[in-house]
Amino acid sequence: MATTLNLYYAPGTCALASHLALEYSGAPYQATRLDFKQQQQRSPEFLRLNPKGRVPALVTDRGVLTENIAILQFIAQSFPQANLAPLDDVFLLAKVNEFNSYMSSTVHVNHAHKGRGYRWVEADDTASLQAMQKKVPQTMAESFTLIEEQMFKGPWVLGERFSTSDMYLYTIARWLEGDGVDVKRFPKVADHMRRMEAQPQVQKVVASHQP
Amino acid sequence: MATTLNLYYAPGTCALASHLALEYSGAPYQATRLDFKQQQQRSPEFLRLNPKGRVPALVTDRGVLTENIAILQFIAQSFPQANLAPLDDVFLLAKVNEFNSYMSSTVHVNHAHKGRGYRWVEADDTASLQAMQKKVPQTMAESFTLIEEQMFKGPWVLGERFSTSDMYLYTIARWLEGDGVDVKRFPKVADHMRRMEAQPQVQKVVASHQP
Repeated sequence: MATTLNLYYAPGTCALASHLALEYSGAPYQATRLDFKQQQQRSPEFLRLNPKGRVPALVTDRGVLTENIAILQFIAQSFPQANLAPLDDVFLLAKVNEFNSYMSSTVHVNHAHKGRGYRWVEADDTASLQAMQKKVPQTMAESFTLIEEQMFKGPWVLGERFSTSDMYLYTIARWLEGDGVDVKRFPKVADHMRRMEAQPQVQKVVASHQP
Repeated sequence: MATTLNLYYAPGTCALASHLALEYSGAPYQATRLDFKQQQQRSPEFLRLNPKGRVPALVTDRGVLTENIAILQFIAQSFPQANLAPLDDVFLLAKVNEFNSYMSSTVHVNHAHKGRGYRWVEADDTASLQAMQKKVPQTMAESFTLIEEQMFKGPWVLGERFSTSDMYLYTIARWLEGDGVDVKRFPKVADHMRRMEAQPQVQKVVASHQP
């Protein structure tokens, strides 16, 4: 890469998944922290980089990439020696993308109904926003039941192979407590969290995501 | 492949994107239609294949794949001669996945608040369900404004290269009318729809998705 990769992130967001992948890649990278409380994701400078006004956004020498699924595979393919995805196996790579897609399009969306319900109803419709918030513990628990019982192979998401899906699962599992769900209900996921948090890469990146 | 691929789909769903990719791949495949009105996606037989109770679900000789993003890249990589994705270019392939992820995790989710709001509030909470439905024309129009003005390169999503992103865009653009949004507001998307519908592969698959 001609330019060092630069990841825009904010604490508490799903950008942690892409941040972890960069750290595990072993490649040099920068990480630029945005303050969502100050609405930095809506600044003209950032909207020029990412018109969606969201994170993650990864600046590369070819342009900007958004969406965890795309960034995760891009990092895995750009730094194949780090072995972050089964690039040699079309079916297993699809299983990684299947899992990551479930994280982004179902589980993250469930979670977003707690704090970002205004995306789907009027921002002053307090009753509907509260109705959405109220169901989040149920929808998150249902999704993690499916993960625990059906998707998670162990010891890693895919089985023996560690992959970007482990980073994405860890990122979203961290939201369970705030969403009113006790991770201990899901012993495999809880054990996975503990093992992730024992890794120096995770400790280093999580430290930069403190509020 | 030892076994012929078999795609489970239902009319009106996002499974059309994966169905189109199979047709464009040139490979032999089967397509099995489910009747959602009869709740066939909740049948014990289908839940054994896909515990999510959703489509698309692609049965392969290695197991079942779900989630359009995963299936689309799996088909593109399994049948590279069909040239359905820029497999030779890590960055461009990421742009395909970025676009497809926006389709699944943002635009499809916007649309789902019209008919499937019960996923995120109680099914008998009529006021909240109506509040969600009411905002769908706005959220869909906002997403398609971003597609029209920022994402769509022309003549295809990626630019000169036709890809699975064109199939996914076409699939979701078909929902605009029912969501109360006139596609003519988005001239590039409207022209793209017309060119897609002129292709024999699209005509053949769409015929099998009639209600």
